Parts: sequence; structure tokens; C-alpha cells
Amino acid sequence: MALTLGEIVAALGGELHGDPGVRIEAPAPLESAGPQQIGFLSNPRYRPQLAASRAGCVIVAPDLREPALARGACIVADDPYLYFARLTQLWKRTHARPDGPAIHPSAVIDPSAVLGQGVRIGPHCVVERGARLGDGTVLKARVHVAEDCTIGARCILHPGVVIGADGFGFAPGPDGFVKIEQLGTVRIGDDVEIGANTCIDRGALADTVVEDGVKIDNLVQVGHNCRIGRHTVISGCTGIAGSATIGAHCMIGGAAMILGHLTIADRVHISAGSFVARSISRPGLYTGIFPIDDNASWEKNAATLKQLHSLRERLKALEKKL
Amino acid sequence: MALTLGEIVAALGGELHGDPGVRIEAPAPLESAGPQQIGFLSNPRYRPQLAASRAGCVIVAPDLREPALARGACIVADDPYLYFARLTQLWKRTHARPDGPAIHPSAVIDPSAVLGQGVRIGPHCVVERGARLGDGTVLKARVHVAEDCTIGARCILHPGVVIGADGFGFAPGPDGFVKIEQLGTVRIGDDVEIGANTCIDRGALADTVVEDGVKIDNLVQVGHNCRIGRHTVISGCTGIAGSATIGAHCMIGGAAMILGHLTIADRVHISAGSFVARSISRPGLYTGIFPIDDNASWEKNAATLKQLHSLRERLKALEKKL
Amino acid sequence: MALTLGEIVAALGGELHGDPGVRIEAPAPLESAGPQQIGFLSNPRYRPQLAASRAGCVIVAPDLREPALARGACIVADDPYLYFARLTQLWKRTHARPDGPAIHPSAVIDPSAVLGQGVRIGPHCVVERGARLGDGTVLKARVHVAEDCTIGARCILHPGVVIGADGFGFAPGPDGFVKIEQLGTVRIGDDVEIGANTCIDRGALADTVVEDGVKIDNLVQVGHNCRIGRHTVISGCTGIAGSATIGAHCMIGGAAMILGHLTIADRVHISAGSFVARSISRPGLYTGIFPIDDNASWEKNAATLKQLHSLRERLKALEKKL
Repeated sequence: MALTLGEIVAALGGELHGDPGVRIEAPAPLESAGPQQIGFLSNPRYRPQLAASRAGCVIVAPDLREPALARGACIVADDPYLYFARLTQLWKRTHARPDGPAIHPSAVIDPSAVLGQGVRIGPHCVVERGARLGDGTVLKARVHVAEDCTIGARCILHPGVVIGADGFGFAPGPDGFVKIEQLGTVRIGDDVEIGANTCIDRGALADTVVEDGVKIDNLVQVGHNCRIGRHTVISGCTGIAGSATIGAHCMIGGAAMILGHLTIADRVHISAGSFVARSISRPGLYTGIFPIDDNASWEKNAATLKQLHSLRERLKALEKKL
Repeated sequence: MALTLGEIVAALGGELHGDPGVRIEAPAPLESAGPQQIGFLSNPRYRPQLAASRAGCVIVAPDLREPALARGACIVADDPYLYFARLTQLWKRTHARPDGPAIHPSAVIDPSAVLGQGVRIGPHCVVERGARLGDGTVLKARVHVAEDCTIGARCILHPGVVIGADGFGFAPGPDGFVKIEQLGTVRIGDDVEIGANTCIDRGALADTVVEDGVKIDNLVQVGHNCRIGRHTVISGCTGIAGSATIGAHCMIGGAAMILGHLTIADRVHISAGSFVARSISRPGLYTGIFPIDDNASWEKNAATLKQLHSLRERLKALEKKL
Repeated sequence: MALTLGEIVAALGGELHGDPGVRIEAPAPLESAGPQQIGFLSNPRYRPQLAASRAGCVIVAPDLREPALARGACIVADDPYLYFARLTQLWKRTHARPDGPAIHPSAVIDPSAVLGQGVRIGPHCVVERGARLGDGTVLKARVHVAEDCTIGARCILHPGVVIGADGFGFAPGPDGFVKIEQLGTVRIGDDVEIGANTCIDRGALADTVVEDGVKIDNLVQVGHNCRIGRHTVISGCTGIAGSATIGAHCMIGGAAMILGHLTIADRVHISAGSFVARSISRPGLYTGIFPIDDNASWEKNAATLKQLHSLRERLKALEKKL
């Protein structure tokens, strides 16, 4: 349940300064790490924590080699955060307990579903007819993959995920709404991770598409006919309405809401809590949040906000007078 | 896996212009439909797409008969969108693969639950004691219907739906909060559809009520004691706090938030992302969204917003002076 | 299926004025309660309802003894709301139907999980290896407790809850994002209630912590490494991003969004729908909501909001002139 510094650099590379025989019990945050733990420093903001850290070893970038050495053992790596990510994977791998069965007996899998090599399906999952899971994909538990939906290779779907429920489509009729049957599917690329209780609806006519490398957090809703471009990251509680097209390498903050039938360009960043009501054609950071305040101040400002347009008119009138 | 134009109008009506023997492989969006596909045009905004469409047939309203004929085969229908909805149902019906068992053996159904005729219950559902499901209602998979809750006829509940979990009620006591047991139930009408992972809580004393024809999207929260009027539509990620009363024929946009203990009249439309903090007594469209902007502009405007009330006072003072 | 007033005060105390033999069929809201029902009045706002109530008995505070007596039977209690909460518990207890098995046979529980005395686990739950559930804790149905997570005593987890799914952590790499394995767990205290389909992610290195007495509503997301202080209440649809620290005795309104890596002091109240982007160090009520309006008014004001900073500059210029 421990690795030596020598074993770590043998597996992950990096330039070790210090005794390779030192045993490390766990990775830990820099500020709380003790002598049997290894921390990392990637954000220069936290550099003041370096000298004070009691960590047995610290992962740092080349430009921090000197202050790190002054403190004690270190591993110098070009990208300490990436190194740390790989270290967590090494940790998980070397400390893994024996796995249960690849396909849990309580999972309900249609005989027509196609499962790639090394697929793992946890308890109480449902994989409907015609669904396909790529090599090495993992459905943790209680995941639903509806009929004809396709998941790529090396994906991870966390508990409660629902892929391919019906999109939300109804036509008004004389006696209430008439259901538009959702005839499309969901197609998810490789290396996609989808958080707990997130829902991705099947397309109405065409498919809902999530491209390679997309990472989606918990409790996110992706409506029918959406397309999410490769390596885009979507944080928790976000809603994306139907037929939105989101570019590649976007970052969508938590609890954002994106309207349907619009297009967001590649490399757009949306701040958490923002509402996107129109297409965005240029990369950049976009925000729309009411700033929080003590309630009394908010009440006054919010009340005035309802007169804002008339305030502008009054200001204009004054300007004319002068 | 195809229908002829003749078979379509025989089943759904409408005025066919073109060869009834033409085989249609699938409905498709107008802009991407090919010669073996059928599209529709309901929104006049998309009329320019008509002439360019390669669709084997287009469903149009009577006033577009001429331009549609000029293009090729068409079906003229009074309400093309409704016709299209019924076409998707025809498609689903005629292409259905054989169903599995009506009640999946992995579902856990209390013997005291009452199931109507033609009820279908998918894998890993739970139906607790005293619950009732009306004729033809479908619980897709992993749906929870808690004790004594009632679901009407022809409802569809998608995976992960939770009906009748405890409402959120606690009284402050000397040693922390004391649970208020939720003694009511949930009563859902006929023809209601409820999206994946949506939750509708049971009432505290009386019942939470969802009337006939209501359509609720994914990841929606309906608090205890709410009443949702007939044929109201609620889009995804919306939250409705306890004891809210929402009228009939309302449309609630996605990620809206509606406070509790208020009343919304019939035929009120709430824009997506809006926060409803007070009752609304007149039909109409209501909105409250901070407009998104590039982050730098937003920062300046949001900072100024915190002084808005004092700006108004300064403007007033200027006006007095002049 | 009824209790006499005498039985109620024997169990819960309080000063009964009226015939102890009167049979009460159910607690009910004051405004709709009939002669076989018992209501309560705690909010002085509703005092006008007292005289008009047809309830068989009313629970009131000492200062309402006289008007309550003038109306009919009453129970005088120091805290009528708390009394009412305990009455609902008495009701539930005395009307309980026989329980099913403590551990439902469809639940999947790892043999290494440790279950306290009186634990109840409903259908289709999953409890992974190394997980621990304290005495008297209840997993209603379809609850997921991931490996090594700890739940205290007397907790209630509603259907669809996911405890200990991976936190959302990725490092950018040359070929896309690299997963940061989440090596921490979730530790939940005693007397915690967690609503349907809520997710609490496991920590990245350290643990995510929810302290004693916390109450969390439905569809809430708690990110990795968060700490929620004791007796804090979090309403539905709220999102709390990773590494946020929330104090004790806070009240977080529904659909609030709290950014990560910030600290909120004890006894802070956040209004529903507010976005918290910075730490809050003093108790109080904080709000940030765009006020809803009819759509036409909103459009004018929202458009002007995008010029707010420049309006301020124009106002300043005018002030200088004068």
C-alpha cells in the first residue's frame, strides 16, 4: 500500500532529487501532506506553500527546481499537474483490489447488445437492444443505455446515468399535446466520461452526438439532437436544450444553461451560472451572472433594475438639456 | 422498414400530391432529407428551405401547396407539425420490434400495488405498496413509485424517475432539525410524460398533484404539495419549490426556478432560466435573465449594477438641479 | 387508523383544552382541516385562519390560548411547529404497516461493507466494498454508496442518491484530458437526510465531508472535497462546486449555485436562485437574482444593462458639468 520514489519515477519519468528508497503512502494536497506523502505544485499562486510544506516529496515544474530543492526531495516534471494526474492513476492501479465479475449478474443486458472487449457493467445497469459499448468501457452501476445507442471505447459512465431516454418533443393537438416519437439515437465517442445522474436524450430524427474526449459532470441534461464537440468539458448541473451545437475544446461552467437551436464556436468558455440565449461565434470567456450582495442592497438594486431603461431615457433627456 | 406515401396517407389522412407507390425509408429534417425520406415544414421561417430540399416528400400547410408542388411530391395537411408527430408514431408502431415481458422480472412490485391493463414495467423499477398505475402506463426502467402514489392512464415515466420521495420538511428543534413525516402522496393524471431522473415529492399532509396531459422533461424537481395544471409543459432542469400552484396550459422554460407558496395563472409562459419569486396572475410571457456578454463587459456592468440604486439617486439629484 | 386527543398529549405532551376522547383521523392544513382532523398555527401571519378553521383541534402557542379556546379544542405547546413535526412522526409510527425485510434481496451489498444495527436497505441499492452505514440508517431504494464511503447513524437516503461517484477532475494532456483518479471518499455524519437523485462526489485526495444533522433536498450536486457544516440545510437543484467549505447552520435556497474553492461562514443564508462566486465571511442573508418581469419590460431593461457601465460614466460627466 505504498510506493517508493524510485518506483514512481520508474513508472512515470521525471527528474528525481532525493532518496529513491523513500516510501510514499499516498498523494496528498501540498498544504496537508506529511513526510510519507507526495504533493504537487502547479498553480504559481500556491508557490508560497512550497517552503512550508512537510511533504515527503513535491512535484514541481523546472523553474521551481531551486526552491523545491531547498525544501527537500522533489520530482521535476514539465507539467506537474499532468504528472500528478498520472500519479493518481498509478496509485489506483497499484492499489486496486480484485475486481468482481466483468458483467454483474444483476445487470439486464439485451442479447442483441454488442459489448467490446474488456467492457465492465456494474449492478442494476440496463443495456437495451441494439446498444453498443466500445472496448474497455465501464458502466459503474444503475446506468441505462437505451436501444440502439452507441458508446465508444474507454468511456466511464457513473451511477444513475441515462443515455437515450426520449427527447422532449410534442406537437399541440386538439386534445392536448401529441408525442413526437424520438426516432434517433445517441452516439458517444471514445474516452468520454459522464457523471452521476446525467441524462443525454436520443435524437428526434437524427442522433444526439457527443464526440471523443468529452467530459461531463453530474446532473447535466443534454437535450435531443445536440452535438458536443471533442474535448469539451461540461460542469455539473448544466442544461443544454435541444438542437444546440457546441464546439470542440469548450469549457462550460457549472449550472450554465444553454438554449436550443444555437451554435457555440470552438474554444468558447462559459462562466458557471450563465445563461446562453444566442449563438457565440468567437472563442473567449462569456458571462452573465447577477452579482450576489447582502439582501438589502440587492433589493434596492433589483428594484431599480426594473426602471433601468427609463433611467437611461431620463439621462438622455438631461444630456440634451445641457 | 419503409412505408409508401400511399400507406402514410391511408393511415394519417392528408392530401397527397405525387406517386402513392414511392417508398419512404424514414422521416428526416427538411434540410437533410433525401429522396427516400419525408420532411415537413411548419415554421414559415424555414420556408426558404423548401425549394432546396431533396426530400422525397414534404408535409406542408395548404397555403404552401403551390411552392411545394413546384418542388415535387407533397402531403398537404392542416397542421403539418401535428401531422408529423402522428407520422413519427406511425413509424414507431410499424417498425416496433417484439416487446419483452410486460413486467420485467427484475422489477420489485409490492403485491398490494394495483396495475391497470396493458401496464408495462421495465427492469429494476420499484412500485411500493398501495401504488396504482392506470391502463397502458409505462415505467421504462429504474423508475420508483413510492407507497400509495397514483399514476393515471397512458403515462410514460422515463428511467430514473422518482415519484413520491419525501418532501423536504423539517422543524427546528433544540438539537437540530426534526423531520416532518410526509403523510401525503402524489397523484398524477392521465397522459402525463415525465423525463429521466425527474423527482416529484409526496405531499406533507395533502397530496402533490400533476393533472392530465402535463409533460415534464428530465431532471426536474417538483416539491411537496405542488399542483401542476393540465397540459402544462415543464422543460428540463427546472425546480418548483413546495406548495406552488401552477395553472393549466403553462409553458415553463428550462432551468427556470419557481419559489414555493405562490400561484401562477393559466397560460403563463416563463422564459428559460428565469426565477419566479412571486405569484403571476395574468397570462403572458415573463422573463428574468442576466444577459450574457463577453466577460470583460460583464464585469464592468455587474460591478456597476451594485451601485444602481445610488446611480438613480444621483440622477434624481441632477434632475432637481435643472 | 386514528388517535384520540388524549393519546396525542400522552405521547407528545402539551396542554390539552377539550375532550381527550375526541378521535382524530389525520393531521391536516389548518385551512382545510375538518372536525376529525388536527391543524396547527405557528406563523402569526396565518392567525386570521384560526377563527374560521373547522379543525377538530388546533395546536397553538401560549399567546394564542384565548382565541384558540374561543374557537374550540386546542393543544397549547411552546413551539407548535415542532409539536406538529413530532405529531407527524407519531402518526407515521402508529400507522406503519408491517415492514418488508431489512435488507431487500435485490440489493447488491459487498461482503466487506459494514452495516450498523437496524440498517434498512431497499430494492436495487448498491453498497460497495469497504462502505459503512451507521445504526438505523435507511437507504430507501436504488441508492448507491461507493467504495469506502461512510454514512453515519439514523441517516435517510432517498431513491436515486449517489454517494461517492468520482469527483470531476482532469488534467489537460497532449491528447486530451487525463483523468485524475479520485482517491478520497465521502464521510457523512449522523442524522443526515439526502433527497432523491442527489449526488455527493468522493474527494480527490482527501474526503468530501457532510457533518451531522445536514439536510439536503433532491437533485443537489455536491462536488469533491466539499465540507458542509453541521445542521446546514440545502434546498433542491442546488449545485456546490468542488472544494467549497460551507459553515454550520447555513440555509441554502433552491437552485443556488456555489462556486468551488471558497468558504461560507456559519449561519449564512443564501436566497434561492443566487450565484455565490466569492467567500462570505459574515452571517446574514445574501441574494443575487435577476427580477422577473413581463418579457417586453425585461427586454428593454436587459438591453440597457449591457450599457450600464457607460451610463454611469455619462452620469459622472453630467455631474462634473454642473
